[in-house]
Amino acid sequence: MFLKNCWYVACWDHELIDGKMLARTILEEPVVLYKAETGRVVALRDRCCHRGAPLSIGRREGECVRCMYHGLKFDPSGKCIQIPGQENIPPKLGVRSFPVVEKDHLVWIWMGDAEKADASQIVDYPYLRDAQWKGIPEYMHYDANWLLIVDNLSDFAHLAFVHTNTLGGSEEYAYKTKPVAIERLDDGFRVERWHMDAPPPPFHRKVLPADEKAKNVDRRNIGRMLIPGIFFLESMFSPAGSGSERGNREGTREYRNCQFMTPETRRTTHFFFVYLNNFEGSDTNISRSLRDSLIEGFMEDKHIIEHQQKVIDTDAQYRMQAIAADAALSHFRLTLSKKIAQEQAEEAARVPPEKEPLRPHELLLRS
Amino acid sequence: MFLKNCWYVACWDHELIDGKMLARTILEEPVVLYKAETGRVVALRDRCCHRGAPLSIGRREGECVRCMYHGLKFDPSGKCIQIPGQENIPPKLGVRSFPVVEKDHLVWIWMGDAEKADASQIVDYPYLRDAQWKGIPEYMHYDANWLLIVDNLSDFAHLAFVHTNTLGGSEEYAYKTKPVAIERLDDGFRVERWHMDAPPPPFHRKVLPADEKAKNVDRRNIGRMLIPGIFFLESMFSPAGSGSERGNREGTREYRNCQFMTPETRRTTHFFFVYLNNFEGSDTNISRSLRDSLIEGFMEDKHIIEHQQKVIDTDAQYRMQAIAADAALSHFRLTLSKKIAQEQAEEAARVPPEKEPLRPHELLLRS
Amino acid sequence: MFLKNCWYVACWDHELIDGKMLARTILEEPVVLYKAETGRVVALRDRCCHRGAPLSIGRREGECVRCMYHGLKFDPSGKCIQIPGQENIPPKLGVRSFPVVEKDHLVWIWMGDAEKADASQIVDYPYLRDAQWKGIPEYMHYDANWLLIVDNLSDFAHLAFVHTNTLGGSEEYAYKTKPVAIERLDDGFRVERWHMDAPPPPFHRKVLPADEKAKNVDRRNIGRMLIPGIFFLESMFSPAGSGSERGNREGTREYRNCQFMTPETRRTTHFFFVYLNNFEGSDTNISRSLRDSLIEGFMEDKHIIEHQQKVIDTDAQYRMQAIAADAALSHFRLTLSKKIAQEQAEEAARVPPEKEPLRPHELLLRS
Repeated sequence: MFLKNCWYVACWDHELIDGKMLARTILEEPVVLYKAETGRVVALRDRCCHRGAPLSIGRREGECVRCMYHGLKFDPSGKCIQIPGQENIPPKLGVRSFPVVEKDHLVWIWMGDAEKADASQIVDYPYLRDAQWKGIPEYMHYDANWLLIVDNLSDFAHLAFVHTNTLGGSEEYAYKTKPVAIERLDDGFRVERWHMDAPPPPFHRKVLPADEKAKNVDRRNIGRMLIPGIFFLESMFSPAGSGSERGNREGTREYRNCQFMTPETRRTTHFFFVYLNNFEGSDTNISRSLRDSLIEGFMEDKHIIEHQQKVIDTDAQYRMQAIAADAALSHFRLTLSKKIAQEQAEEAARVPPEKEPLRPHELLLRS
Repeated sequence: MFLKNCWYVACWDHELIDGKMLARTILEEPVVLYKAETGRVVALRDRCCHRGAPLSIGRREGECVRCMYHGLKFDPSGKCIQIPGQENIPPKLGVRSFPVVEKDHLVWIWMGDAEKADASQIVDYPYLRDAQWKGIPEYMHYDANWLLIVDNLSDFAHLAFVHTNTLGGSEEYAYKTKPVAIERLDDGFRVERWHMDAPPPPFHRKVLPADEKAKNVDRRNIGRMLIPGIFFLESMFSPAGSGSERGNREGTREYRNCQFMTPETRRTTHFFFVYLNNFEGSDTNISRSLRDSLIEGFMEDKHIIEHQQKVIDTDAQYRMQAIAADAALSHFRLTLSKKIAQEQAEEAARVPPEKEPLRPHELLLRS
Repeated sequence: MFLKNCWYVACWDHELIDGKMLARTILEEPVVLYKAETGRVVALRDRCCHRGAPLSIGRREGECVRCMYHGLKFDPSGKCIQIPGQENIPPKLGVRSFPVVEKDHLVWIWMGDAEKADASQIVDYPYLRDAQWKGIPEYMHYDANWLLIVDNLSDFAHLAFVHTNTLGGSEEYAYKTKPVAIERLDDGFRVERWHMDAPPPPFHRKVLPADEKAKNVDRRNIGRMLIPGIFFLESMFSPAGSGSERGNREGTREYRNCQFMTPETRRTTHFFFVYLNNFEGSDTNISRSLRDSLIEGFMEDKHIIEHQQKVIDTDAQYRMQAIAADAALSHFRLTLSKKIAQEQAEEAARVPPEKEPLRPHELLLRS
């Protein structure tokens, strides 16, 4: 149900400040994340191998973590390196560790086979490290499957109905336009849309100088959605009729929008985002206003999407009916489901380890 | 588990005032109800056929409703009549609509085969439209199966124990009386009970003139319970010894009590009721007092019945043991279960439509 | 999953004061407990045999209880002795009763075959009735399987990590000591540990006279854990170096700690405890301080143990790994699981009663 052999965003780096032991479930596996004093980020299964106490309520010791139930200590690889009152430590005693990479303020995690983890596969988005692009990184929690959020971002059609008063898009315009052409990629899709000679949408108008607020703009949106759930949106607003469609960027204001959907469970999602602009200069209120506008808009999505999840949960027989605007999400779901199927086939082909019988310390734990 | 081909109360008409989009689950199906400006009441499956967003958070447009996710518009028959940005609308695109009839302030809905819906089968209760009979329509929600409420109303025995201080019935009297005779009907049952020469029960005493409060009354109750869960109770209070049992109705005060149980789910119920009297004249406080007394009494029932539901849920092995007073509820359950069995047999005899394979836009929605 | 043929603590006797109808689920069976005016304690299945209303919201009448739905009355053996309005009472009409014994302020209940109940098997702990030993009986509710609490009490290792600032145990010492030797019993285990020449742990220091607070003590702990989940701990604190290990008890202060774990469900537990001391004299603040210290410490355990339960529930594949300190809990789980297996084998060997077909009053109650 999840693609495991790929990189997911686990957290923003600021979430690990000051030695915070961050408990976060990812792909239905509880993980504890922390940054050692050395600066190294560690990710371990959030469960002591001994009696199951969460390590996230344990104690960080250097690069290690100590379970505060019976005192077992684990190094960053997950190996148990101390058992109070016991000299010999069985070599297999330990917890699972996950490959993690900190890059451009994001902490990426690899939930699949550790030996397949290749940091060079992490998508590069240079705006995240470019000082000219400013924005405030944020996090939201969704009570919905991450693909419903991917769906939401896969068409511009909903802008007119869900975000009329926030992120914009005129309803009248929606009835006239055709679904946008999509470019099918091996790992997602790319869409582009021009919206000429229209008033600036509310979030943009708010941060414009007074003399520009009333002037129409030509808007260009280029969206890219990548497996497993990474969205980049480049938005450019030029003075209407200035010829931006022919390459003239004079007077153009630009945004770079990143959104990262990481499944917490099959019904809940970690949603990370930042909305970058390149024109605020020293006016930090522009970032703040854009952040607030985004959250306002995302709450509108959340309202719809969490309702969708409930509807889907309520009736296992419900079959959705496609419209033309679903081309992008259909391609994405098809591509992703093929990758998952392939991964699961490889998994199924492995000889499973023999099941060991229950030992006395495990008796009566269940049922 | 439910009888589908019959009329259920969906709401009071006042619940649809001012264009309210009422989301209400009936027989485990989410329904949206609204009254168009033309006055027509519409009931649709509360789920856009496209991506599952609830129509109840959509927008009413004339007699139609527009889904406010991607803008699809549906007419009162459920047919999709507009997709923003798409010219051709596949004919099968649409949501289910349900037959509805507004009658005497109640909105009735038919959850089964629409072609079998016959408005003339709706039970007629003329007091609901007779200006001489006054009362305040109410709604309560129960965390219990609707038949547990039917059970509750199927005997007068519980009055003495549950409602001693509200709806009345003397406990001492309960030990002496025999279960009341019941008349078995094809679609329910009828019971009648006389209770002679007793003080007026609290709810009645409250609305009596001061000089009548202390005088004993002869009380006659005639109850009728109809499938699927409709209860009418006629209550007559005459001066004790005035000969009401021989037809003398001088000095008699009467009530007409309607209660409608509509399953929300197999464990929850919509409970509609109104308690009508024919003697309040211009004193609206009589209706208000009776309404308050009823709610007080029904809260006593709710307390017991919701506990019952929990007990039943807790232990799948629990078998109830019958007493003589269960004759009415036993007849009702037997009659109803036969009708349900017959309906389900007819359903099972139909050739089910072939299951279509999942299409790309549906992939990964579940599991 | 539970051992049924044994005695469990159902409640403290003070919980039944003033005719209280105590609803308490034990081994997943709802029970109502009450003390008749005669002083006799009664325990019945908390469910009327008629329509399932809880007897705990009924009315105590002498030694009997009346269901306040339709008025059925039950005697202490569970037999129905009155049905209002009905003369003949079917002999089999009744609810299950459970053997109960009140002893030393505890009410013990037997959830298995009543004929096997033998009050002489109830564990005797004379300190509970000895006026020299003072303490305040308490109750806590755990959202965890009772055996996780048994595990917790099965080693002293966790003291240093969980209770450093409350019940004590130095962390440094924990790294140096070996797991304590355990004595394996047929019905549990016994452990003993000396901890010489250390500062008094916080709970003990608090109740010491000012001039003793800073003096080191020799601490002796003797724990006994008995099936199904009964724990006794004798703690003795002597002046360091006074020769207590050679039998000198001069200046020794002693505690007797009882803890009783009774499964409410397989995931929740009733936890009864009292911490007795023999030196408070008339200073009742000593009992109060010890009670508060215990609760403070138990809340630390509860925090860990309830987390453990969640971890176990989350992943059915999780296998725990043993360390040397698990010897006691392993023995306990093995011994108990054998007894349960034997009991279940005996149960399975019985010919089950034939299932009676559903009668009309039971139709449509489920599904």
